[in-house]
Amino acid sequence: MTVFASLSAQHDHTPAYTERLGAPQGQTVRVRIRVTLPVEAVHLKLVRVGEIELLPTQEVTGQLAAHGEAGRWFEAELPVCEARVRYAWQLRLPDDHLNLTMLGLHHTRRGFRNWFQYLAGHVSPEWAWKSVFYQIFPDRFRNGDPENSVRTGEYFYEGRTVEQVPWEQPIDKWGDIHGHYGGDLPGVVQALPYLKDLGVNALWLTPIFVSPSNHRYDITDYRHVDPHLGGDAAWDDLVEAAGAADMRLVLDGVFNHVGNENALFLAAMEREEAPERELFTWRSEAGKPPYHAFFDLPTLPKIDYRSERAVQEFFSGEESVVRHWLRRGAAGWRLDVAHMIGVDGTNEQNVAMHAELKRAARQERSDAYVFGERFYDAEHALGGEGEDGSMNYHGFGLPVMTWLSGQTHCDEPSRLEGAELADILWDAYHALPPQIALSMFNVLESHDIGRALYRVGESRTRFLAGFTLLLAYPGVPCTYYGTEVGVTQSRSGNMPWCREAMPWDEAKWDHDLRAHVRTLIHARRATHALHEGNLRFLHAEADAVAFLREFTHGDGRTERAVAAASRLDAPHEVTFSLPGGTYRDAVTGEMFTGGPVTLDVSGGRLLVGQAE
Amino acid sequence: MTVFASLSAQHDHTPAYTERLGAPQGQTVRVRIRVTLPVEAVHLKLVRVGEIELLPTQEVTGQLAAHGEAGRWFEAELPVCEARVRYAWQLRLPDDHLNLTMLGLHHTRRGFRNWFQYLAGHVSPEWAWKSVFYQIFPDRFRNGDPENSVRTGEYFYEGRTVEQVPWEQPIDKWGDIHGHYGGDLPGVVQALPYLKDLGVNALWLTPIFVSPSNHRYDITDYRHVDPHLGGDAAWDDLVEAAGAADMRLVLDGVFNHVGNENALFLAAMEREEAPERELFTWRSEAGKPPYHAFFDLPTLPKIDYRSERAVQEFFSGEESVVRHWLRRGAAGWRLDVAHMIGVDGTNEQNVAMHAELKRAARQERSDAYVFGERFYDAEHALGGEGEDGSMNYHGFGLPVMTWLSGQTHCDEPSRLEGAELADILWDAYHALPPQIALSMFNVLESHDIGRALYRVGESRTRFLAGFTLLLAYPGVPCTYYGTEVGVTQSRSGNMPWCREAMPWDEAKWDHDLRAHVRTLIHARRATHALHEGNLRFLHAEADAVAFLREFTHGDGRTERAVAAASRLDAPHEVTFSLPGGTYRDAVTGEMFTGGPVTLDVSGGRLLVGQAE
Repeated sequence: MTVFASLSAQHDHTPAYTERLGAPQGQTVRVRIRVTLPVEAVHLKLVRVGEIELLPTQEVTGQLAAHGEAGRWFEAELPVCEARVRYAWQLRLPDDHLNLTMLGLHHTRRGFRNWFQYLAGHVSPEWAWKSVFYQIFPDRFRNGDPENSVRTGEYFYEGRTVEQVPWEQPIDKWGDIHGHYGGDLPGVVQALPYLKDLGVNALWLTPIFVSPSNHRYDITDYRHVDPHLGGDAAWDDLVEAAGAADMRLVLDGVFNHVGNENALFLAAMEREEAPERELFTWRSEAGKPPYHAFFDLPTLPKIDYRSERAVQEFFSGEESVVRHWLRRGAAGWRLDVAHMIGVDGTNEQNVAMHAELKRAARQERSDAYVFGERFYDAEHALGGEGEDGSMNYHGFGLPVMTWLSGQTHCDEPSRLEGAELADILWDAYHALPPQIALSMFNVLESHDIGRALYRVGESRTRFLAGFTLLLAYPGVPCTYYGTEVGVTQSRSGNMPWCREAMPWDEAKWDHDLRAHVRTLIHARRATHALHEGNLRFLHAEADAVAFLREFTHGDGRTERAVAAASRLDAPHEVTFSLPGGTYRDAVTGEMFTGGPVTLDVSGGRLLVGQAE
Repeated sequence: MTVFASLSAQHDHTPAYTERLGAPQGQTVRVRIRVTLPVEAVHLKLVRVGEIELLPTQEVTGQLAAHGEAGRWFEAELPVCEARVRYAWQLRLPDDHLNLTMLGLHHTRRGFRNWFQYLAGHVSPEWAWKSVFYQIFPDRFRNGDPENSVRTGEYFYEGRTVEQVPWEQPIDKWGDIHGHYGGDLPGVVQALPYLKDLGVNALWLTPIFVSPSNHRYDITDYRHVDPHLGGDAAWDDLVEAAGAADMRLVLDGVFNHVGNENALFLAAMEREEAPERELFTWRSEAGKPPYHAFFDLPTLPKIDYRSERAVQEFFSGEESVVRHWLRRGAAGWRLDVAHMIGVDGTNEQNVAMHAELKRAARQERSDAYVFGERFYDAEHALGGEGEDGSMNYHGFGLPVMTWLSGQTHCDEPSRLEGAELADILWDAYHALPPQIALSMFNVLESHDIGRALYRVGESRTRFLAGFTLLLAYPGVPCTYYGTEVGVTQSRSGNMPWCREAMPWDEAKWDHDLRAHVRTLIHARRATHALHEGNLRFLHAEADAVAFLREFTHGDGRTERAVAAASRLDAPHEVTFSLPGGTYRDAVTGEMFTGGPVTLDVSGGRLLVGQAE
């Protein structure tokens, strides 16, 4: 049940409606509702000690109304009485009785899972809301120092020796972890001016620590940068250069499993009495390694957080891995297979472990951004105790790309249409506390799934439709290295085909694509409503969707932005109603005024509201 | 998003689709899906250690198809790998890709909260599914022994002395707890033949233990029946007589708070060093009692289950209250304000406390039925660890009565229509594990809210529409004493107006109403599809709804029943499609065959599928 913008009652997390976010337990927060219905009475409903309490409201007059939003305003004091407060509004009309929750207006009091949420004392890494990320797979981004590159035959791993692959050579082996292209951190330093020009201001680096494979998710030593990437000194150089360029660095934390050359694991394997033994979960099951491992791969023994030593080593100890790299300049952690982390070979205690991790991270850096890879629905883990948000495959990237491409990420045909797309996006969004929704890490593509451009048949138009939605959607957008210049795949599928080396010969770039992407990134960074605004859908039809982002200041002034996109390659005119105000197309500069508009949304449109 | 019966893929908890319920963790269970779509491949999706696994299915041929359900059947082995397994079905079509969850068919994989659920090792009190309950408020049901009645002036409580009220005198004071009508347990014994004739086979008695008030929710002594109800001997007599009549007895457990004349509380108040002191939560807050109490009422001090002594006393100790009365013949417990129970003056640890309680109850009586009063959405507490189900105000009684009466239970006008009614009912139903949904305790009315007949303007037609839905809906139906003969209220509102004394002068009965109610109760008890069947809506319009209950045996034979109801007093013909087979109207005897039917659903219709 998608909630569309035409609702006759509104409440959201922005200041006109919610005085402030994250007030500590025990305080109260002024909350407001705006209604255009003929209400006789308005009450705030609150869940406290399992009961619903009805609190009075007062009508607000003056400044708020002056800013032109239709309707009457009512306010109440919301007691921040629990860690995660659930509340709703109750409207009494002469002949009716309505409840306003995140799911809109209903005659029945919806289930609590649909109510508004207030997180007590929650602190968010707000810089991330204002950022555009760029994902770098270090081996494939740029070779800044050919001296440090892996050489063919340099070492032996998993059945064969490693191999140095020429930068220009397309990927041609499935599942190969031995082919190294030679990208490194000095390459990232060299690319900083390029990245800054593109408009991104934060990098997510997939793992950079000592590891034998080209993806480095099998970590041998968590406390040192792989010498083939330039080693620790290259990291320090990158931190310095990135700092000078106002570019933040987020590292990839592989805390579910280690690589089988890791010293902790080697010690545990050496003798049964080893103290390191408790860091893993031992078992005896035919056809499986004698320890729990990531998908039963012997090279990836799973860490068992029943062991306090494991908790200390990676998360909370004074010298933990999490702390170590934040101290050395990282701005946050992306957590690999965050949903798997747990005790006893399972994912039990998952959220508790994430809470430990985040607590330590925040002690080191009060604005550290911690988000998990969660390829599936992560709602149950996103109540605020653990990570700030998660990679938003479930609630954004996968459905958007399925809709745009007509295929799932596994290349199965799909007839998903716009109304159902809006529905699943809204369903995932509405269930999250607002700061979590704004901290979700949105991607269309990554090192794990097929490149977006490839999946839409290399149609620049359809790709830009998706990219426009990405940059306008609630959450933190991240673009994948090379996307901006048209990097694609040599064949269909997910990894490794999506990991081609970045071309640095500008003759190979799609300059028009890059110009459009760059414009959208800069617009996103400049548009406050896209950083912190609410979400309402404006339109959905089979081949097109449009949504609104809206941030209403405490005095009633509203900042807005609207994104619309079609999945057709041909021009596709749709008609919908723009909320009041004046808008500028972020790409073409065309101007619009509120009210019904008809516009071609092929290739995506981003309309940014203009100050009056 | 209501799921209607016309779905082109089906899976539910009944044997054709789910081999058995409650298999222990570690085992596998054969699950099946029936599809009428041109599928190319069918997979079972399972959440395990946070990952979605895709399991193969095999097509089933033979017996299942022979029983006439259209479509192809596929089966898979579901590993019962977690306490609460989440699973879904994935269908690949030549040009599409679909997921089947409890929410129907979607192109996207819905959030896990919409997936099917399997509870490992869960045991349900299945007798309750086959039962119809009758709620008795002992002081108002029948005075079997005038000798034991409270006499005017007999004792002093809360500011004044108690009063004996003549049986015929209507209630005339709001909030009065001093007026005793004299009903008792010998009266219940006398009424057993009457109740058995009506068709009910289980009684829920509101509290019967020693208490000063007429409602007895302020318990002085949990281990003795109030002498004014006949004392312990009367209980033993009732147990014996009820047993002989195949009538089960469920008691009302007030475990959130005690009465202020309770010995434990008196001891705690007497001196600060008293060991009983830890059973309560002490505080110092202006204007409030120096201890946490139910709605801050000094007479109802709240029990603090931080105290292991409290846990032992009421729940799990060898001689706990819960155990004591199960040993003495009770068949289960209804738990007063179940949502409030917790530690430290709050409802924290609520579900854990319920788990303790249920564990003890089941040790005493393996089929004890434990359900909580939860006036609000209880989904979060109904994952199977705690109570078997809860009173279904949220997901049944309140919305149904609001729809029928055009008013909320607080007398506010409501324009709730049939489609939204179906939506909220489905929303609440689909979120529960199947055994929990079947164990929900459904009421239209109770001692706490207005009488249904009164709320529909004493329209027998509209009341019966609601009563038909009640008896056909998934869960355990309970009718309130006197409803069957037309007991109503002298004025609008909830308690105490809904607590009039039961008339035993048959001249005052609505005999037609009673005959209709009796027929419906007997039909419910005789209809297996109503005990364990699934739920699908067939129809919803502003003033009418219809739903199907369906139980498909392992060999494919399907038992069905259909309920339909209008909220109009005048004849109201609606047209909808009956699934295949032959049906008999449980009241009129009229026969119907599957396919489109048009029938007058005013007053409710219950159509019971006939064996072929």
